[in-house]
Amino acid sequence: MKREIHIAGQPENKIGLEKLRVGVLGMGFMGGTHTQAWQRGKATFNWPIDVELVALFDTDEDTRDLHANRFDFQRVTGDWREVCEADDIDVVSICTPNFTHWEMAEAAAKSGKHIWCEKPMATSMADARAMVSVAQEHGVKTMLGYNYMKSPSLLAIKDLIASGHIGEITHFNGIYLEDFMCDPNVPHSWRLTKKGGGKGALGDMGSHLISMAIWLCGPFKEVVSRLQTIHTERPDASTGEMRQVETDDQFSALGTFESGALFTMHTSWLGQGHKMNLGFEITGTKGAIKFDQERMGEFQLFEMDGNSEMSTNGYKTVLIGPYHPFFGNFCPAPGHHVGFNEMKIIEVGAFVKAILEDDHAYPNFKDGLLFETAIQAIQDSSDEGRWITL
Amino acid sequence: MKREIHIAGQPENKIGLEKLRVGVLGMGFMGGTHTQAWQRGKATFNWPIDVELVALFDTDEDTRDLHANRFDFQRVTGDWREVCEADDIDVVSICTPNFTHWEMAEAAAKSGKHIWCEKPMATSMADARAMVSVAQEHGVKTMLGYNYMKSPSLLAIKDLIASGHIGEITHFNGIYLEDFMCDPNVPHSWRLTKKGGGKGALGDMGSHLISMAIWLCGPFKEVVSRLQTIHTERPDASTGEMRQVETDDQFSALGTFESGALFTMHTSWLGQGHKMNLGFEITGTKGAIKFDQERMGEFQLFEMDGNSEMSTNGYKTVLIGPYHPFFGNFCPAPGHHVGFNEMKIIEVGAFVKAILEDDHAYPNFKDGLLFETAIQAIQDSSDEGRWITL
Amino acid sequence: MKREIHIAGQPENKIGLEKLRVGVLGMGFMGGTHTQAWQRGKATFNWPIDVELVALFDTDEDTRDLHANRFDFQRVTGDWREVCEADDIDVVSICTPNFTHWEMAEAAAKSGKHIWCEKPMATSMADARAMVSVAQEHGVKTMLGYNYMKSPSLLAIKDLIASGHIGEITHFNGIYLEDFMCDPNVPHSWRLTKKGGGKGALGDMGSHLISMAIWLCGPFKEVVSRLQTIHTERPDASTGEMRQVETDDQFSALGTFESGALFTMHTSWLGQGHKMNLGFEITGTKGAIKFDQERMGEFQLFEMDGNSEMSTNGYKTVLIGPYHPFFGNFCPAPGHHVGFNEMKIIEVGAFVKAILEDDHAYPNFKDGLLFETAIQAIQDSSDEGRWITL
Amino acid sequence: MKREIHIAGQPENKIGLEKLRVGVLGMGFMGGTHTQAWQRGKATFNWPIDVELVALFDTDEDTRDLHANRFDFQRVTGDWREVCEADDIDVVSICTPNFTHWEMAEAAAKSGKHIWCEKPMATSMADARAMVSVAQEHGVKTMLGYNYMKSPSLLAIKDLIASGHIGEITHFNGIYLEDFMCDPNVPHSWRLTKKGGGKGALGDMGSHLISMAIWLCGPFKEVVSRLQTIHTERPDASTGEMRQVETDDQFSALGTFESGALFTMHTSWLGQGHKMNLGFEITGTKGAIKFDQERMGEFQLFEMDGNSEMSTNGYKTVLIGPYHPFFGNFCPAPGHHVGFNEMKIIEVGAFVKAILEDDHAYPNFKDGLLFETAIQAIQDSSDEGRWITL
Repeated sequence: MKREIHIAGQPENKIGLEKLRVGVLGMGFMGGTHTQAWQRGKATFNWPIDVELVALFDTDEDTRDLHANRFDFQRVTGDWREVCEADDIDVVSICTPNFTHWEMAEAAAKSGKHIWCEKPMATSMADARAMVSVAQEHGVKTMLGYNYMKSPSLLAIKDLIASGHIGEITHFNGIYLEDFMCDPNVPHSWRLTKKGGGKGALGDMGSHLISMAIWLCGPFKEVVSRLQTIHTERPDASTGEMRQVETDDQFSALGTFESGALFTMHTSWLGQGHKMNLGFEITGTKGAIKFDQERMGEFQLFEMDGNSEMSTNGYKTVLIGPYHPFFGNFCPAPGHHVGFNEMKIIEVGAFVKAILEDDHAYPNFKDGLLFETAIQAIQDSSDEGRWITL
Repeated sequence: MKREIHIAGQPENKIGLEKLRVGVLGMGFMGGTHTQAWQRGKATFNWPIDVELVALFDTDEDTRDLHANRFDFQRVTGDWREVCEADDIDVVSICTPNFTHWEMAEAAAKSGKHIWCEKPMATSMADARAMVSVAQEHGVKTMLGYNYMKSPSLLAIKDLIASGHIGEITHFNGIYLEDFMCDPNVPHSWRLTKKGGGKGALGDMGSHLISMAIWLCGPFKEVVSRLQTIHTERPDASTGEMRQVETDDQFSALGTFESGALFTMHTSWLGQGHKMNLGFEITGTKGAIKFDQERMGEFQLFEMDGNSEMSTNGYKTVLIGPYHPFFGNFCPAPGHHVGFNEMKIIEVGAFVKAILEDDHAYPNFKDGLLFETAIQAIQDSSDEGRWITL
Repeated sequence: MKREIHIAGQPENKIGLEKLRVGVLGMGFMGGTHTQAWQRGKATFNWPIDVELVALFDTDEDTRDLHANRFDFQRVTGDWREVCEADDIDVVSICTPNFTHWEMAEAAAKSGKHIWCEKPMATSMADARAMVSVAQEHGVKTMLGYNYMKSPSLLAIKDLIASGHIGEITHFNGIYLEDFMCDPNVPHSWRLTKKGGGKGALGDMGSHLISMAIWLCGPFKEVVSRLQTIHTERPDASTGEMRQVETDDQFSALGTFESGALFTMHTSWLGQGHKMNLGFEITGTKGAIKFDQERMGEFQLFEMDGNSEMSTNGYKTVLIGPYHPFFGNFCPAPGHHVGFNEMKIIEVGAFVKAILEDDHAYPNFKDGLLFETAIQAIQDSSDEGRWITL
Repeated sequence: MKREIHIAGQPENKIGLEKLRVGVLGMGFMGGTHTQAWQRGKATFNWPIDVELVALFDTDEDTRDLHANRFDFQRVTGDWREVCEADDIDVVSICTPNFTHWEMAEAAAKSGKHIWCEKPMATSMADARAMVSVAQEHGVKTMLGYNYMKSPSLLAIKDLIASGHIGEITHFNGIYLEDFMCDPNVPHSWRLTKKGGGKGALGDMGSHLISMAIWLCGPFKEVVSRLQTIHTERPDASTGEMRQVETDDQFSALGTFESGALFTMHTSWLGQGHKMNLGFEITGTKGAIKFDQERMGEFQLFEMDGNSEMSTNGYKTVLIGPYHPFFGNFCPAPGHHVGFNEMKIIEVGAFVKAILEDDHAYPNFKDGLLFETAIQAIQDSSDEGRWITL
């Protein structure tokens, strides 16, 4: 009945760093999330060093003022390059719009800073490849913000699959539905134009599902797909005039992993009734696992071996608890919830561990390139109306 | 609080039939199910005529003896042709193996008998087309046994879609998983050979999902797919020797309906943890509907209009009741269950109504041909590695 | 993959009965349900004798006409006593209003007829006791229509408990909610008066929950309760004038079984959002079971032994299938549904087995008296504001 | 598509406080949780003042060392009285064992410190009353750590009830099950003795359920209950010798609120299969609400008005989002999760708002006394075997 926090994932300071000095670029939702992760990481993982919030960048003055009060940054600035090149900063969080990632990452890497960058990493394959190169060249650690991979549920599922608990994977059935674009009057924006770097449901949402599939089941081998735009015009936010939408509202894809296993997936931001229905059913030769991010505190597990007594077998609802990865860092009592922000703390924990132990963080820019390649293949398959081999 | 049965779907006897004399061919599970449907139909729909169970055919003597006791057939026989050609029979139920459907249907149609035939209708497109022709030529009514379409839940869903309750359909996400072939030691049989008429997960199971998709959302326009055989060999039932499996264990497909709506589907008989997970999520511009045959007494409904108050909106669990189609024929109290066998009674009710009112029964052989065409396109797409336009 | 019906529960004809001749009293919903059960029982259990539908009684002529067409009774009558005393009838189904049960049962028993009587057996303890006596005196078999006990799910649960699968029971948490009286404009009727034999939520609904608790966990030892009437007046159906309601809308009770295990229960016909939420969670020293009649095709099972690996343990959803009691009599394929009417067939199967094998049917009048005693104790406890020891 | 944090609940600094200087007493799980709440509160609510972590008290040196590194306290100490009486501290968090609450609260109040105290507030009614008095006398603000009341789901439910969304409440059906004492080999401890201040399932767990019931539905009027100890002996942790358990393993209670509404509840720490199944169904005259802490990111809502179309009505699953209380302080995107630790931040937010605006925090010591009175009545009712009027 005595319940105490149990701290896992505490890093060794193998590189003898004195403290970690942080700059955060962009203070929208994600900038705040990164900052609170930096703020809470030490308590969560009992880091052997302190973190200093050094510089906050945002283009908007009100935003800067708000977050300057919320957090204890040493300085705030409207000049991102100053942050990327500063001498008193070891690591930057890039939380600005996608099309800016490349030049910020380049500047930060050249200045020897480790980079925690939000996803998607870039708005073109060329930029993504350049980001991999520049990071490698300057030997900086990188981490991409695919936070959903970092929940105790998903980490537990990854372990179950890796240990062969459900046998060889035969099928991955993925889904990602949100409903925030269902209303045809949601206004047009640069996000819905190719020129503006709009990525559509495929890039914005599908990237989470695709990366999760690859992380859990391995790289794609071949894929076929169809992208669709249902609401082909949306009203301009100011004039109300109808403007052309250039990005997809939804896509479906199917294909195989390198292992030979089949996958099927569908993603839509017209997903009526759903807020965060990012999930899957993974079937193997010895069992199966289901997950839905809307109920991130649990997963469903079927174990075939129990089948010898079919009369008492069935899918189990497993509630996460301290026996699952990193849950105990937040709460010793099972059945409680690790929230969205805490996935981000687990993410920063993995990144700082990689920095301090001079190790590989997952997913880094190179891993991200693999995701981008798969996303591009899905886009190409739909554009060209044929199977694509990766 | 007073609860009385409410009988819907009572037919008029427009053709002045005196009674309906029935022959049942094949007394496996489906033969018995047809027979009990014939037996209970009158009480369920208050038919204006009597049904007579005239003849039972099965090749196996023990089976004939068992069912001769269970039911009150006037005669039992080992000669199916005698039943198809008998003068004292108006309608036959064909419940024999798939490869026999064509010749029995031909004989029955030529003899002027109405035909209630189990699905899939035939083992080749040629046979399916011939069945349509012979039935049309002889003016007999036909009905195919796609029983899952006949549950109150599904009929209610069909009505909701048809009335525009969820707007224009934008996506159909279908699934059909059973686990009865998961064990690699399930023995080989003729059903797993092309020559023996084996149809694989695509034909045996997928036909239910595909027909449901077409019934609810309209004909397919184009499709791309991948079939897979995971357990490529299975032991011979008698010798234990490993034999080649020629049929698919699972398939995934995606494509569009003629309406332009997108679909995604997956079917497998290696579906760990599932017994009868035939279901879908249908998304429209005004709402969405989810269904799973494992919980056939309910469906999930999301109505976007409620979204004006997002804080109190969400997917509803609607329990079936007497305000849904045909439920009241079985039970006046909502929340109770109409069982598997009762879907078959609703099916026979639709068929007898079509006979007595000289109307179209759905799905008849012609409707079935549309399903077979879609199934064939999925097979061809996988074989040829390309999109197929129907 | 070959699926055939499997018939369990086939009785031996130990008493050499030639056939079973049936009279049905009262043709409301339950009368029809009894009749279809009599009609389908032979096919379901492969009974060694025929059933004859001899006489149908109802006070209403239209009702008689309707059901005379639906079913093949040899005669219809408006005189129940004629049926109870007829020479050509072996067994009667009593499906008339509750206050009539006693005199019909008395007449039938005196005439040597076996009695299948709907619940609740009587409107007073005195009547209930008299029914037990007269049946015993005349040596007739009796069966009460507590149909929910007869579903494959519940019978499977009973077996799991009896075999010690969940250890010693420590708690029964019962619920029964329906919403059909939520609207305060549901009119007044004799059912809401004590004089008219109204039993309230306690008698009408609670009797199902209480009998289920006793069947699964054993007799009550002590109980305390509170009954409540929320809508104390309801409009007269014809005049609209508000009339006093004398029966309860809801009750809660708690107490112990003779085993010492604790129970908690609540029943209401003001149960917003529920249609047939009759269910429970039974907790034992080795596991637990949950059930809800609204999802009668499944139950939830937790097995503590799996707890050694807490990270993969949780409540299982077990879908009913042919490995559960009597499921295979209706369908060979798991995950399908046995409907409400089919529970009644399982019930008649148990009754006919008791008749033919000269055995005890459960629950008979004597078992029913135990239920009535518990119901009365709950009523008394609320009336007297104190614990009652049974 | 642009998602930004939305900060609600920002307090005005009406009392002109310069900063808030905090002492935390006891660094078990709850001490850490309080500390991170103090640490994150400013960013979450954009507090107009800074928080300083001044002093950490724990009796255990290793614990002190661990948390001294995790958090930035100015000093650590093994002397709680020093913290309670310090001049440089404005507010204390009391997270030590229950029996210590009274003397710490007394010392802190006498020294003018505001008090955030973990529940249950005291181990006797006398102590609880004394705590109310001393806080009132010295005019300090108090807050009790009933954190489950502070989740966005529960706060949304509270608002729905308060606004009459489900009409007049007719029934509260509460449950609280955890399984951490199921194993009979869980060792004995002081917590299982009356002398040691053990409160049993009633005090430890039931207090959450009872306080939630009172918060949502109002004070209890009368109650009847039964407490039970199933495992009456447990092995001594060191000797293995069996020792007497003096506290309850489970209890059931029923009664009425002052409004007249009925309640039923059950709580157990032998609740097989459950980790954090704290929940309820609240039924009203116009709808109903269900909640389960194991799925804290959603609640179920039934609205009777939709009943005019019964064919499309049912319980809705409402996912929490930024339109629910305080969700937007943590995440702008619905369907994500606010975790356990974040409830504690909402709690500290309410407390600091009360301090800065010189207002009432809920639940304070006086509110807690009402909960304690109800808990005591449940204990007394079981001890005395009779109804208790509060």
